[in-house]
This record gives sequence, C-alpha cells and structure tokens, in this order.
Amino acid sequence: MIIPLDPETIFEAVNAALDEDIGRGDITSRAIVRPGQRARGSFLAKQDLVLAGLEVADAAFSAFDYHLQIESAAGDGDLVKAGKAFARVTGDAQTLLASERVALNFLQHLSGIATATRKYVDAIAGTSAVIVDTRKTKPGLRLLEKYAVTAGGGRNHRLGLDDGVLIKDNHLALGGGVAEAVRRVREVVGHLHKIEVEVATLDQLREALRAKVDIVMLDNMSPDLTRQAVEIVRAAEPEERRTLIESSGGITLENVRAYAEAGVDLISIGAITHSAPAVDISFKIRPS
Amino acid sequence: MIIPLDPETIFEAVNAALDEDIGRGDITSRAIVRPGQRARGSFLAKQDLVLAGLEVADAAFSAFDYHLQIESAAGDGDLVKAGKAFARVTGDAQTLLASERVALNFLQHLSGIATATRKYVDAIAGTSAVIVDTRKTKPGLRLLEKYAVTAGGGRNHRLGLDDGVLIKDNHLALGGGVAEAVRRVREVVGHLHKIEVEVATLDQLREALRAKVDIVMLDNMSPDLTRQAVEIVRAAEPEERRTLIESSGGITLENVRAYAEAGVDLISIGAITHSAPAVDISFKIRPS
Amino acid sequence: MIIPLDPETIFEAVNAALDEDIGRGDITSRAIVRPGQRARGSFLAKQDLVLAGLEVADAAFSAFDYHLQIESAAGDGDLVKAGKAFARVTGDAQTLLASERVALNFLQHLSGIATATRKYVDAIAGTSAVIVDTRKTKPGLRLLEKYAVTAGGGRNHRLGLDDGVLIKDNHLALGGGVAEAVRRVREVVGHLHKIEVEVATLDQLREALRAKVDIVMLDNMSPDLTRQAVEIVRAAEPEERRTLIESSGGITLENVRAYAEAGVDLISIGAITHSAPAVDISFKIRPS
Amino acid sequence: MIIPLDPETIFEAVNAALDEDIGRGDITSRAIVRPGQRARGSFLAKQDLVLAGLEVADAAFSAFDYHLQIESAAGDGDLVKAGKAFARVTGDAQTLLASERVALNFLQHLSGIATATRKYVDAIAGTSAVIVDTRKTKPGLRLLEKYAVTAGGGRNHRLGLDDGVLIKDNHLALGGGVAEAVRRVREVVGHLHKIEVEVATLDQLREALRAKVDIVMLDNMSPDLTRQAVEIVRAAEPEERRTLIESSGGITLENVRAYAEAGVDLISIGAITHSAPAVDISFKIRPS
Amino acid sequence: MIIPLDPETIFEAVNAALDEDIGRGDITSRAIVRPGQRARGSFLAKQDLVLAGLEVADAAFSAFDYHLQIESAAGDGDLVKAGKAFARVTGDAQTLLASERVALNFLQHLSGIATATRKYVDAIAGTSAVIVDTRKTKPGLRLLEKYAVTAGGGRNHRLGLDDGVLIKDNHLALGGGVAEAVRRVREVVGHLHKIEVEVATLDQLREALRAKVDIVMLDNMSPDLTRQAVEIVRAAEPEERRTLIESSGGITLENVRAYAEAGVDLISIGAITHSAPAVDISFKIRPS
Amino acid sequence: MIIPLDPETIFEAVNAALDEDIGRGDITSRAIVRPGQRARGSFLAKQDLVLAGLEVADAAFSAFDYHLQIESAAGDGDLVKAGKAFARVTGDAQTLLASERVALNFLQHLSGIATATRKYVDAIAGTSAVIVDTRKTKPGLRLLEKYAVTAGGGRNHRLGLDDGVLIKDNHLALGGGVAEAVRRVREVVGHLHKIEVEVATLDQLREALRAKVDIVMLDNMSPDLTRQAVEIVRAAEPEERRTLIESSGGITLENVRAYAEAGVDLISIGAITHSAPAVDISFKIRPS
Repeated sequence: MIIPLDPETIFEAVNAALDEDIGRGDITSRAIVRPGQRARGSFLAKQDLVLAGLEVADAAFSAFDYHLQIESAAGDGDLVKAGKAFARVTGDAQTLLASERVALNFLQHLSGIATATRKYVDAIAGTSAVIVDTRKTKPGLRLLEKYAVTAGGGRNHRLGLDDGVLIKDNHLALGGGVAEAVRRVREVVGHLHKIEVEVATLDQLREALRAKVDIVMLDNMSPDLTRQAVEIVRAAEPEERRTLIESSGGITLENVRAYAEAGVDLISIGAITHSAPAVDISFKIRPS
Repeated sequence: MIIPLDPETIFEAVNAALDEDIGRGDITSRAIVRPGQRARGSFLAKQDLVLAGLEVADAAFSAFDYHLQIESAAGDGDLVKAGKAFARVTGDAQTLLASERVALNFLQHLSGIATATRKYVDAIAGTSAVIVDTRKTKPGLRLLEKYAVTAGGGRNHRLGLDDGVLIKDNHLALGGGVAEAVRRVREVVGHLHKIEVEVATLDQLREALRAKVDIVMLDNMSPDLTRQAVEIVRAAEPEERRTLIESSGGITLENVRAYAEAGVDLISIGAITHSAPAVDISFKIRPS
Repeated sequence: MIIPLDPETIFEAVNAALDEDIGRGDITSRAIVRPGQRARGSFLAKQDLVLAGLEVADAAFSAFDYHLQIESAAGDGDLVKAGKAFARVTGDAQTLLASERVALNFLQHLSGIATATRKYVDAIAGTSAVIVDTRKTKPGLRLLEKYAVTAGGGRNHRLGLDDGVLIKDNHLALGGGVAEAVRRVREVVGHLHKIEVEVATLDQLREALRAKVDIVMLDNMSPDLTRQAVEIVRAAEPEERRTLIESSGGITLENVRAYAEAGVDLISIGAITHSAPAVDISFKIRPS
Repeated sequence: MIIPLDPETIFEAVNAALDEDIGRGDITSRAIVRPGQRARGSFLAKQDLVLAGLEVADAAFSAFDYHLQIESAAGDGDLVKAGKAFARVTGDAQTLLASERVALNFLQHLSGIATATRKYVDAIAGTSAVIVDTRKTKPGLRLLEKYAVTAGGGRNHRLGLDDGVLIKDNHLALGGGVAEAVRRVREVVGHLHKIEVEVATLDQLREALRAKVDIVMLDNMSPDLTRQAVEIVRAAEPEERRTLIESSGGITLENVRAYAEAGVDLISIGAITHSAPAVDISFKIRPS
Repeated sequence: MIIPLDPETIFEAVNAALDEDIGRGDITSRAIVRPGQRARGSFLAKQDLVLAGLEVADAAFSAFDYHLQIESAAGDGDLVKAGKAFARVTGDAQTLLASERVALNFLQHLSGIATATRKYVDAIAGTSAVIVDTRKTKPGLRLLEKYAVTAGGGRNHRLGLDDGVLIKDNHLALGGGVAEAVRRVREVVGHLHKIEVEVATLDQLREALRAKVDIVMLDNMSPDLTRQAVEIVRAAEPEERRTLIESSGGITLENVRAYAEAGVDLISIGAITHSAPAVDISFKIRPS
Repeated sequence: MIIPLDPETIFEAVNAALDEDIGRGDITSRAIVRPGQRARGSFLAKQDLVLAGLEVADAAFSAFDYHLQIESAAGDGDLVKAGKAFARVTGDAQTLLASERVALNFLQHLSGIATATRKYVDAIAGTSAVIVDTRKTKPGLRLLEKYAVTAGGGRNHRLGLDDGVLIKDNHLALGGGVAEAVRRVREVVGHLHKIEVEVATLDQLREALRAKVDIVMLDNMSPDLTRQAVEIVRAAEPEERRTLIESSGGITLENVRAYAEAGVDLISIGAITHSAPAVDISFKIRPS
C-alpha cells in the first residue's frame, strides 16, 4: 500500500533541487524563449519501469506556476512499458525548460527505486514474506526514497534512529551482550516501541529469544541457516506471541526466494535504495 | 585534478543528513551505551573501490565533537583494494553510533561515483578525450557528486543552468533553429560565457559551425557518425580557433573508447552520477 | 532516568529565545555598563523546587561567550530547598544582563514542570505504576518540557504523531470501531511499532483485547471502574503477553494513588506540562 | 483594546508547532481514515474562560487547506461559559486529526492567559490603574502571550530589551547608582524612548525623581509603602509633567486592589504569563 | 535589453526588508488607522529619472495582500520626467503605510542606479562599446542592482566569483605571471568558461595575447594608452578570433567617450552601483 | 558615541554577502593559488575618509579562518588621510582573494556613510543640535548603516516602525488630524514610548503642542520659518517639560548650519544613508 508523501516534504525537496540547478537563472532559456511563449512537454518511457514520483515531478513545474500540472494516465506504482508517452504538461515554455531536469532527476531516480523493489517483490510472490528497505538511502532523500519503495510494493523499515529500537552488532560489542542491552533499553524506551535485535549466530538468536525481544534480525545468514533459525524461533515462541523474523545482508534477486521460503517475515534489501539505477525517461518539448 | 569541496557545502549536507537520520534522538544507543564510553571504529573496503568523500564522512563525526577525526592512510581519488581497513576513528561511542550510517551513506555513494568514473577514464586512457559529467545528479547532492567525479578522474560539465550556455534540442524546437537561437543568446549573455549547441545531424552541425559556436555536442551519434562529424568540424574551423566537440548519449563502457578515438574532446556520461551503484564498505566499532 | 537533551535542541531553543528578547539590542545595559566590566550572578531558590534546565540556562549565557559557564552544586532532578543559592555564573556584565531573563524563563518553567511531576511521582511511590506525560505541551517547547518530566521522575509518552500509534475516540468515530481501526493500522504501520487504543467503556475494552492491541488507555474512568478494567485485562491476556494499561483523564494529585493501586501500568497527566506554575528563582548580579 | 496579531507571527508559530507534533507523519490517522473523508469538529468549553487564540487555532487547520476555517460565534476577549460549544470546523478528516492537538494547545494556553488576566483586571475595576504584563513569558511565545494579555483586558509592557529603557536593580548594582545610570542612558538612547527606573526604597525613589525619569517602578513594596511613594511622586512632579508609577513584585489577586487604590498607574503581574494554567477545552470529531 | 528578475529574488529581498523595517509591528499606523480603511497612494517623480524596481516596489505591497498591485503607465527602463505622478496603488491603508518606506527605498535606490547608468550609456552613444557593471555592489543586493544596470541600458559583468574567470593583479602577484596563471586555470576550469586577464602595462598585454586569453582588461590606462593597447590587440589577433577588450578604472562621465572611441568593447564602471545617489520620489496617501 | 554592532548582525550580513559573491566557488583563485600559500593584504585609503566597518571587513576574512584578523592602527570613527595604508591582514592566500571584494564593499560603503555624516556634524559644530539619520537605508543593511552614522558622529532616529511613534503626513491624511491621531495612539501604545508628530505649518505645530506631543518634526520648513517655529514651541512649553524639535527635509551641507542656529534639537538627513558615495580604498595582496 502506497502511503502518500507529505506535501511539505515534496515542496522542500523540489525547491532545494530547483535552487541548486537554476542558481542565478537559466541563462540559455531566457535568452532564446520569448516571455509568454507556451509549449507542451511529453514524458516518454524508454524502458519498462514502475512509476514513482509523479507528484514530485509535478511540483517542479508548479513551483513556478501553480496552474501548471502534469496530466498522466498512469499513477505511481503502475508498470509503464517502454515506448509509452505516459504523461504530459502544458504551460509557459521557459518554465518547462527550467524545471525539466529537476523533474526528470526525481522521476528517474524514484522510479528506479520502485522498479528495483518490484523485482524483489515479484521474486517472492506467493510467500508470506515482505520486502522492506533500510536506512541506506541517499542523504537528504530518505522519505522520498522510502516512498518509492512502497510504490514498488515494499514496506518501510524504521525511518530514522528515533523511529524504532534496533540493537545491532556494534551495540552488542559495546553494551555487554544481548540480555544486558535489552535490559538497558527497556528501562528508558517509550512503551509504544518494540525491540529488535540483530543476531549473527544461532546462540545469539537463542539469547535474544530468552530476552523476549519482539523481532530478531538474522544477519548475513545463508538460506539454510535461516531455515534452522526460523525453526528455533517458532519452537521457542509461546502460543500467543509471535516473534517476527527479518533476514538481512547478502540477499540478491537470485537467492531472495530461498529466504522467503525459509519462513521469515521480513527481508530487508539495501540495494533497492543505495544502488538502484535510474530508469530512462525522456522529455520532449514542442510549441503549443 | 580534484578540486576541494567548500567546507560549507559539506557542513550543510552532513547536518541535513544527520537531522534526517537522527530525528528526535538515537533511542537505541543512548539507552545501551553509557555516556562517556569511548570506542574505535574501523572502515573496511569489501570490494575494490576509488575513494571519495572522506572529508564528508569525517564531518558526520566531527559535527558532534570537533576533536573526532578520521585517520586514513588513503585519500580521495586513491584506489583501495578489497579487504583493506583504510580508515579509523576513535572517540565517544554514542557519537560513533549516531554518525556511522550517515558517514557510510555518503562514503559509499560518493566512492561509488568515483569508482564508476574511473572505469570510463581508464577505458579511454591514452586518447586526448576527457570524461565529463552531466546535470543528471541526485537532487540536493550535485556539488558532492560532481566532486566525486573529479575524484574518479573526470571533469565537470556546467554545475547548473546559470553556469554555461547549452542550447539543446528543446530550445531549438522553440527558438527558431540554431542560427536564430545563437543570435538571441549573444544579445544578452555575459562576455565571459562560451556557447555550446547540441546537434543531432550533420546538417545541424554545419549550421552550428556557421554560427561560430564555441562547442558542439553530438547527440546520440554512433561512433562512425561521430568520426564524420569530427572531420567536418576540423575542416571548418579556422587555424586559430579550435571548436570543442562533445559526445553525449548512448555511450557505455563498451563503446566509449570508440568515441574517444573518433577524436572528440569531451565525452559526457550521465550514468556515472545517476546510476552508479554504492560500493560496499563496512564500519565495525569496538571498545577502546 | 533522565535522558540528556540533544545539544542542538538546546541551541535552537535558546537562540530563538534570545532573538525574541533582545531584538535589535539591550539598549539599557549597553548604555549603563561599560564594555569589559565583569560581574557575578547568583541563582537563588525562593521556594522548594526540583531543578530542571540547568544546561539550557547555561546555553543562554554561553551563546555570547563560550567561556561563560554556570557553576552549580545541584543538578537537574535534584531537590533544591527554598533559600538556597544553588548556582552562579561569572563573566562579562553586559552578557549576564542580556541573558538573565531568557535563562530564568527556561529555568523557572522547566523546574516548574519537574516540580509538578515529582509531586505525582511521590504520590504513587511504592506502586508499580509510572507517571507519563502527554502531547499537551507548549508549542515549540515539547522536547524541553518532556525532558523536564523525566527530571521530575516521570517517563515520556510518544513525542509526536509519528512516534507511536494511539487510536483515540476521534479515530474510532471515523474509522469503523476498534476492530476495523486496528486492522487498518496493521496493514501499513512499521513492524517496530506497538498499537495503543483508547477505550471509554468496558465493552470497548473487551473489543480492544479481542483485537490483541498492545496497550489500552482507559479514558476518564473512575478508580473503581479502573479496577474492574484491570481485572478484565489480566483475565484475558495469555500467559506470555502482558497488555499494558494506561489511565488518562480526570486524574489529580488527590486521586492519583487510587489509580496506581488499581493496578494500571501507566498514568498520564496533562497538567504537569500544560498547567505547571513557574517556580520562583531570583538572579542577582554584583560586580566581581 | 486588543491589537491584532501579525499574520506572519501566527504562521511561523503554528508551522513550528505542527512540525514538532507531526514529525514524519500522523501514522495513526493516515492508516485509519481514508483519504477524502470529511468530518466536523466541535470545540467545547469545559470551564468558564476568556477566549484568546482563535485565529491561531484556525491557522493550525488552514495550514493544510486554506479553505478550512473555524466558524465561531465568540471572538477573542469574549467570556465563554462552561458547557458552551463555541466553535466548529468542517473539512478533511485527516487534517482535523493532524491539527487538533496543536490547535488546542494554543487555544488552551492563550485562553488560560486571557482568563488569568481578566481576573486581575476585574479585581481593580473602577480604579485608574491598568494591569500590564512582564517579560516572564514562555520562550518563543512572547508575542502570542502578550496578545492574550490584551485579550484579557491588560496592556503590554515592553516587548523585549530593545523596546524600552528599564533600569533595574542589577543595572544599578553595576552602574553607579540611579543618577549616573540615567545620565549614561541619556547619552545614547534614541529621542523617542522614555526612561523607567526600578526603585526599592523611598530614598531611591527620590533620587529617581531628581534625575527626572519618566516612570518609576516600585519593586516589591507593600500597599502601605506604595501609598507613601505615590504621595512623594505626586508632590515632586511639576504641574505639566506627570511621572508614571508602576507597582511590581509580590502582587496577588488578593492584594492587587490595594495597590490600585494606592494610586499607581500600572501594575505588572508576571504570573499572568508564567503561571496561568491552561483552560479546559475539548474537541470532538464526527463524520459529516 | 532588460532581463526580468527572478520572482524568488524579489520575494526574498522584499521580505527581509519588511522584517527589518516593521519588526514587531507598525505601532503608529495600527493605532491611528482603523482596520479595513482603504486608501490610495501615488508615486511622484521629484526629478528626472530612469525607472527601475517597479516590480520590487509592487512586491512590498503585495506581500501583505496579493490583490494589491501598483498601476503604472511607465515601466522599468523608461525615462520619467520630474513632476510626473507615474504610478499609484489602492488598498488597505495600514498596508500602504507599513510598506511605503520599503517600496520607496528599493525604488529610489534601483532607479538611482538605472539613472546613473543611463548617463554613461548616453555618453558613448554611437560607438560600439557597451557599459558594464562590476562586483562593487551593496552586500545582499547584487542581483537587484545588476538588474537596475540593465534597466539603465548597461550590461552585466560576472555575477560572482563562480560566474567567470577574471585573473586580476592580486592573482598575478601570487600566481607566477600571466602565462603561468592562464595555464593553471585551463587545467581545471569548465569548458564553457572564457578567460579574462587584467593587464596594467602594454608588456603584460602582449603576454596575455600570447597566452591566447579571450578577454583583456586594461586597468587604469589613460585614453591614449588605451588606444595603443587596442592597436596592439587588433594587430595580434588572428582573423577568426576576436579578443574582447575591456577598460576599467578611473573612468568618469567626462572621459568615458574617449575610451569608447579608442575602440574598446566593454567599459566597466564601479560608480554606477557603488556610488549612485538615490533619486527623489515621494509617495502620498489619501483616503479612497 | 559609537554603539558596537551586535556580533550576530555582522555574522549574518557578512555570510549572506559571501554566499552572494562566491556562489559555487572562486574558480579563478582556486585554480591559480596553490592550497596553503600564504599572503599579506594591505588596505590603502585613496581619499580622506572617516573609517567605519572594520569589524565587518574583518568578519569577511575570519568567516573562513577564525585566526585571520585585520590589524589596524585606526579604528571606526577615525579620520584616515589619503595615501595611508591603514590596515593589513595576513593569512591563506585563497581566503584573502575570496573575501577581499566583500570586505571592501562593506568598508567602502560604511565608511562612505561615516564620511558623509561627519561633514554634516562638522558643519553644525558648536551648536546644540545633533545630526540624526532616517529610515531611508539600503534594504537589508539598516543596522550596519545606522552604525556607520554613529561612527561619523551622528545619532540614530528610530530603527524601524516598531521602535517609536512618528505620526507623519500620510497618517494625518487618514487619521482625522493631529489631535485625534495623538489620542488614538495614546490608547494603545506602550508607556515607555514618546510621541513625535510631523507638522508642515505653524498651525499644525500649534495643534501638536496643544496635544502635548513629546517631539515635533518640522517638515520641509525654511530656516526662517524654522526660527519662528522654535519660538512658538519654546513659548508654549511649560517650565519642566521641554518639547524636542526636529528639522527634516530639504536640508543640505550648505544650509544645515542655518537650521542648527535656528535652535532645533535634531536635524535628520536622509542623504547620509541613501546617497553617500562609496569612499575609495584599495586592497593589494602580496606573497608573505
């Protein structure tokens, strides 16, 4: 399910990007295009892609003129086939030229993430696992990128360090082991937060279960080891209290289904945000 | 040649990223790690990579404590081999934990760009062409990404719409053709700016040369057509006035050398910024 | 346990307050006090109080001169008796005069909250309940006020609408009842979040338990009804899964112990933030 | 007389409060309430109160949708009786839910100040004195709180350190006594500013009168001593030049009338801003 | 040719100026003028002037009410004769009073620059030289002042240190002479930038020509020496590559024509921005 | 008496100016000057001038490196003779080059204002009148320009519309005449503010005196009429209450003494801020 982006998030990201790109002015366009000239621009998919960021691209145009609005048959989360002119925008020609690169940079990047996410989601279709993202996002673009993950069919892990307790290897190295770390967290954390612990071995896993954590993250385990881990968890958990299991690390499009079939609940993939290639979209402007 | 980043650019990007990631506080670390505890963190290359962003990563730690400083044998632009622990940082454990993800997100992303750039630079070694970037960057990260391109051995195209005149297809569609567009630009542009025109055909190329533009960009031409274009340019240009030639569009690691050997001066590659995968770097913290 | 405030939170709040108070300059002090004159200021408790905000007050002085630092025998969370000169600061006289009101406004307000909180905490001493705050805070001061609650011995409820799921009466009126509301939340919320539901009747309470929510908030129930509710919850919850119970609404210093003795886990009190009177502290400056 | 708040002051305070409360999003409401659902919210006074902040509350809703507007029979400064549903707002349900707490926090706090002020104003009804506020306000909320004072029938003392000359005990301790301090101020202060001096004894008062100050502030004097002070001032002032007299410090609802009847012009009360309890207002939402 | 100002540039400058001037409120007008009263204001030229900044003045009114708009027969760049009431604005009287000083400060300053520029432009009428500005602008007002230069008929030199390469005497003192400095710049500068060098002697001029720079700036040369310099340049430049020549330093209204007639292309004048006196414009408000 | 500028005012103005001038980087200097090279810069007065803004210029250098500090024998307010090298700064050469224009722009502009002010101050030497400024300042630079006025020996009129009550012709046209306007102001204005009224005729003057205003501003009166006005005021004012008299409008260096000798207290001159030409100062850098 796609959760809509907050309008202010879009507004701030788009304005920062326009400032960055336009600086003191689009010296080429304002010389060539006469004020008031109108034009029509058309977005063309040059590869199969899952769309994400249409509203963001729209904001790059409407920043200059709130009447300017992208018309599109497709919506975020839709599959758009190569060759499809999926959206267009009509308005002041100087505005179209000043905004096109920013609009495309967002659209190509976010659709790239949605497209990459969809591949993982499709790869585990029919299992009960879900694909989630990580905090391995481009600095300054986290909320947008995590939105794109949901457009691709994934779900979001925590949005920041304040949005959930996740005890990782580096914490355990400093905090005296799983049991002690969990104890310390329980003393101060809000009563609305669950506790997740990253474990690297089956022994650590058993320690985490004894500490009654809410979620265990199996770090860099093979599919085989993952299957054993799932068995240990399910055997240990009482009837009424299901411990969530997340697999993380070393997971690729090739092996992701093996993890899902091992019975985990969540599979987190850093690559869908940190390494998704941009999709190819062109924008052609003509007088109107 | 690597041009150092402006300290304010680093400062603003890093602080925005820390705000985004930490929000109202790192609820896990402040519960587990006792105030004042010290630790040592170590960066390990998990693949061959060209380093970029060390100063940016450093700023993620020194934002909390200006004494905290990364020590590194390697510098930006250096090749670091897989398995190498190339840098470390010692200081307050809570600070290391709060900053590590932001430091890594910058370092992995920028080194990813430098690494991708270096591959193109190596592919045309020995020719007189240079690799340049485009405006296809992640919104909000342009100066950092363009810095990473220079760390990889590339050079920068214009930094924004105000940083150079580039007449593209969309301008020509609106502005009455090459000659008229160039004439309009000359009327208003500052005397320190050159004029570049994108051409898609040899006829357009000849029109651009008649308009005495300073640079021609050959858009999406094959290596063969590029060779013909270079010949036309060199034949047309007077002895004292060398027209620069840039190739752009459809260029890959496989065919980039063919373009360089066709005799162009500049080859612009969008993929080095819009689609470079993050490189794999780990950060392990231990008590110190 | 008092969780330290983030330095940036302090910095921003103090600088906004100084801007607000000083405007274009302290026209009285800069006329009367000659540049370079030094002085010593002393904070005196004019009533019994629980201290909170010492670091914030300190920042009001060090904003002008980072050498200026409050020296204090007492710390946040300590009880200070009426008549006690508990802290002092020595430095440039103009700075002391320009900062004193801002320092006092923070210190008197935050200590007021800590003092009010402590009274509730003391009133339920020996029970297993804890006092928590609400989102009924002064606009712009939430993190500081919630910090003061912990200095008084309370704990924090969620910090904002993004920091936890709390389904209230207004949600239920719009969202189709408890079961349906919980179902909708489970579909989209992150796996690290628990779910709390406000119930006004025992029937609603039973519906919430059937929906397996993590926390129930008993809204405006009498101590008697609260005792019945606790019995229903404890009877319904399976061995391994303790449902947390929170009392909220209509709770005063007089009746708070009755709620705690009814067996609830959490008691939330809006008045400790929205209506705590400032404590009386004076600040006297003398030449040094 | 109520002086309207500047729209920008409202805008900035409300947006900061919404950012603080909503953070990365209202995760409960956006899960439960379907986009586009409409609702109606109603404000109910749960105690007698003097209203203040209606426009501010309104801005908390219109921040999301400028069509959303509170309809109210009452206005700021009006007395609203317990049990009265005095205002309502109709619009998008998610917006009502996201804004209600911020709207209430402002409305309850500012009406609390207006209500407290009105009590003092009523207590001195029929005398020629006026109630004024102080700089003892909540950091960041000064202009709003001082507005609420006027809604309660009080008037404003200076808005900040740049908004008037007030020579206080701490200045006198550093600046060589009343006469010398006044002399120094006259040398630099703008010709549009008057000079007020705080005096603690009748001797200091006489010194201030000799220095021809415009206003004297009687600090912490009893009603009896105040009466003597008034006589001294009135005897000393020349026919054409009335010296204003302000009482300050140690004044309560019980003794305020004694000060007013002693003949002072202004009575400043810190408690109306630093310690006014929030008034009780509820907000109930129903589908519409 | 006048290049329109970016709306955001206007918006930010005007809002900063209004904040600076209005502070916590226009205490005179809001006391005297009753809310809702309407008025009409009229701008009167009290001397001959070239208009610049009409849109900026307009923004000072529309900041409060976007319906408020200046009506004017004249436009930026037009000559307005003394005694002419050239513009008027009708709307809320408090708004007119709060905005008038800011509107006038911009209008008088920018028209002052346009008027000064026009005198230089007129003085060289019929020659092929153009008047350009410098970076000697009022801090914070550069884009507005450079806009005013174009309204006066001048053209813009570079907008900032990033907007063109200009090697000046201070660079040469540090960088090893003209040839070496040019070589270093060529190594790193973007391919869209030209290179200008400041020369103080004919020898330096010849060195610059040998280094094939694009523009030479003749610094503080007399008209006679300038004529010799022009001859040297024209003799040296190859047929197809015209070197631009700029005169700078010591140029006044009296001698500017001599420079233009010496054959230079550009004449830069610092005084049109750093020392142009404000023009005299009055603004009278009447009830409407 | 010169009142020191607030460090934050300097900091913000200088940083905005550096951002404006440097943009994405000083592309010339960073190419030519090798990192780490040190240099010495020297400020030379090329005309007689009164210095103002040394600290501001200093901040332009120390923004990059807080060790960098201008050394100067002269201080603000001092007369510096033509030909005098009055200050120097030593440090990183790239920093000197990046900051010099901003430093000079401030120094030349502010010293221009101080120099112009001093001329008026000298012209009325020996009289009891003082020169004051107006609100006719460059947008965004008011506090700095008003500081420069005090460096020239003038004093400051109100700093903004919130800093004093001045009833002008436009108010009178809307507010029902002098008596009514004064009455309305007295109803709402703070007790620390005086009231000044602009009068254009002797009749208006008499009306203002009857209304017991604190200051009268004689608008555009001739020296002769001013003398009559002063007589009327002095005759009307009671023994103990001196009404201040300000002359404003149409005052030049030639006639200013006549106004002073007519007996007014204050003479306001717009030209010292709105039309003071920059003074000529050079900055030469050499290796060190």
